[in-house]
Amino acid sequence: MNTRSVHTRNTDGSSRLDVMNFLNEVAQNYPSAISFASGRPAEQFFDIEAWIGRIPLFVEHFARQHGLPNETARNLIGQYGRTNGIMCDLIARQLALDEGVSCHPRQIVVTTGCQEAMSLCITHLCRHPDDIILTRSPAYIGITGIADMNGIGIVPFASDDSKPLADALEEAIRNARSENKRPRAVYLVPDFDNPTGSVLSHLERQQIIEVCARHGVVILEDNPYGMFRYDGDVVPTMFALDTKGCVVYLGTYSKSICPGLRVGFAVVPEGEMSGGQSGAEMLDALSQAKSFATVNTSQIGQAIAGAILLSEAGSLRKLITPVIHHYRTNRDAMLHSLEDTFSGYEDDVTWNRPDGGFFLTVRLPFEFGRDEAEFCANEHGVLTMPLSFFALGDDGRDRVRLAFSNSDPERIREGIARFGAFVKMRSGRQHQQRSR
Amino acid sequence: MNTRSVHTRNTDGSSRLDVMNFLNEVAQNYPSAISFASGRPAEQFFDIEAWIGRIPLFVEHFARQHGLPNETARNLIGQYGRTNGIMCDLIARQLALDEGVSCHPRQIVVTTGCQEAMSLCITHLCRHPDDIILTRSPAYIGITGIADMNGIGIVPFASDDSKPLADALEEAIRNARSENKRPRAVYLVPDFDNPTGSVLSHLERQQIIEVCARHGVVILEDNPYGMFRYDGDVVPTMFALDTKGCVVYLGTYSKSICPGLRVGFAVVPEGEMSGGQSGAEMLDALSQAKSFATVNTSQIGQAIAGAILLSEAGSLRKLITPVIHHYRTNRDAMLHSLEDTFSGYEDDVTWNRPDGGFFLTVRLPFEFGRDEAEFCANEHGVLTMPLSFFALGDDGRDRVRLAFSNSDPERIREGIARFGAFVKMRSGRQHQQRSR
Repeated sequence: MNTRSVHTRNTDGSSRLDVMNFLNEVAQNYPSAISFASGRPAEQFFDIEAWIGRIPLFVEHFARQHGLPNETARNLIGQYGRTNGIMCDLIARQLALDEGVSCHPRQIVVTTGCQEAMSLCITHLCRHPDDIILTRSPAYIGITGIADMNGIGIVPFASDDSKPLADALEEAIRNARSENKRPRAVYLVPDFDNPTGSVLSHLERQQIIEVCARHGVVILEDNPYGMFRYDGDVVPTMFALDTKGCVVYLGTYSKSICPGLRVGFAVVPEGEMSGGQSGAEMLDALSQAKSFATVNTSQIGQAIAGAILLSEAGSLRKLITPVIHHYRTNRDAMLHSLEDTFSGYEDDVTWNRPDGGFFLTVRLPFEFGRDEAEFCANEHGVLTMPLSFFALGDDGRDRVRLAFSNSDPERIREGIARFGAFVKMRSGRQHQQRSR
Repeated sequence: MNTRSVHTRNTDGSSRLDVMNFLNEVAQNYPSAISFASGRPAEQFFDIEAWIGRIPLFVEHFARQHGLPNETARNLIGQYGRTNGIMCDLIARQLALDEGVSCHPRQIVVTTGCQEAMSLCITHLCRHPDDIILTRSPAYIGITGIADMNGIGIVPFASDDSKPLADALEEAIRNARSENKRPRAVYLVPDFDNPTGSVLSHLERQQIIEVCARHGVVILEDNPYGMFRYDGDVVPTMFALDTKGCVVYLGTYSKSICPGLRVGFAVVPEGEMSGGQSGAEMLDALSQAKSFATVNTSQIGQAIAGAILLSEAGSLRKLITPVIHHYRTNRDAMLHSLEDTFSGYEDDVTWNRPDGGFFLTVRLPFEFGRDEAEFCANEHGVLTMPLSFFALGDDGRDRVRLAFSNSDPERIREGIARFGAFVKMRSGRQHQQRSR
């Protein structure tokens, strides 16, 4: 945090830094509204008490590992402990089984949710005032917020019909360098991006790794949604495709287990990394920063997550099968509701069809900002997120993010109908205005 | 984190930033050694499974508060939630009952352990490159680490026979200003300071508040040990004595419940604060920074801490009564062992007699640094912390911190005997060297 720190404004004038609170607290302001605003997991699948009941499995595992009596191990779970975490072996196994990510436990730092992993990586990589990060725009609020809170420059890049994403990234890196900035990291959600729901192709991932290796830029691959694929074929993670030490993999159990655990992690490559440092050096730096940020991640949270992994033979696939079914059903309900609601508006109102994740985005024939979101909440009882909240430039002003994860088909149908009523009224009014 | 960030060196050449890891991991390197190194609570009093069994009490409380069915409340505990926490009412009640601290729940931000509260406060208060904090030296490693990680200047102050502590603080503030630095906060552990175990008198607290009010400096009162008093009368907290909006109170349940929860908090004064901002402005800033650091504190951790408070009628006094007895017994065993071991060395080896807390410090007739600590661990099987690890200047080079909290009388007698053997050998060798 330093004098470079500014409250960056969105195109609609709202502070990007306010949006996370808007996201977390808007639901409390409009309790009766139907919410498509926040990409929360579906809490009816949380089985907290049963999960907590499995803790003895982790205690036994921890006791065996350290040659301790169970009672000693149980007490040590409640104690301060290893900065980098006490479930790294179980995370490494789960990543191998579920994500095709192969790593050694020593490459892992367990963090207080993935947000802390992002914050530790960004503040470690960007220590010079000219250091910047790159992201696509619109981008997840968590990453832009970290940059803004720490006064770190953030530069957007975007593909278009004439330009592949990797070329746009390389151009952004070159332009930043020509302005004496030092691009240090690119943040990406390659699978079911938040907020857009889009997926990077195998080729795009390879090309981006090439560009970052060439320019000594680290890739922060954030993958909260990769396991939540409803159609189509899995694309390998960038960490799995990386042969150049470019990719730091960021993960979380907030979506696959529950956010209340606050357990996430970073996986750092071994050996020489892009940008010159070694993986071991980055790990030591993250560990040190972690020890002064939160000491170590709650060992009770780690014991619960670890116990679930032990009781599920290391994989979360079976545990989330009903959850995936629920999300797929919700996505389909939202797509059908959009088709029904906006039939006859095909030219004015369009949306994407995500193969997974928690979100889709709708393009409207008018600008949709904070005022429109508040109006929808107040007058129509439906909560949505303007894409301008996530934008780093002027993009996304006519787009809305709709989260379908924490809802059900009935509320989705009703909520889309309410949203449709607003959109039709507003576009109708606009038509009238135009016709005057 | 910025270019001001440096790895500050201790007088013994070790990096202050390494010490927290040394502290957390030294125990693993010397498993057979007797440890007086880290001020950990006594883990045999952790009753994790019984405590977790009380969670339904918090679920019912949360459900009543928000007018929700119990099952909905239970699921919401596992979800993302309010940035400032969901147990603020219970914290406010516990502070009133146990610490004589009177505040409204809206003044509280629940954090991932007290370390996060310290980090959020320091980085919020020190955003300009010239902003600095002040501490006594030696000082708790957690605060110097935050300053070093974030490149924030830290200035020590110390009383002596001729100068009260408040005068030393005011002189340090004036000197810093004369060098165009901006003193923003003073960090203090008024009750049973870590590492020295000392207590600020009622008068010293009032005088320091006067000085900080006059100079617009915020006091960060860190009080992990206040409830662990074994003799003498309670001195009111600085927060309770403050009528000027100077004091931010920092608390934790790591000592009174267990560190594995990672639940701490900051209490911000209402109205106008020293330095000009309002309490509400500081709270909003902490909340915003918190949302990008760790989103919100584990609601499962909060549910466990909250459930314990509910089952104990809001106070932790009864829960910690046997723990206090254990610590008092340990302190007495350490004092007696020191007297036995060093009888005849009264002129060369001296120590303080703390009325509470987890630590005492011993002054030796020779310098005791990292090398001596490693030698003691290797050759004598006893782990100690050189006070130079905590020093901001040249002080403490001949002093050692001994933690008695996480031990027992038998190990304490044996450990002090081992430590005594080293000290006598070393001083003997010195005598010989001198006599040559």
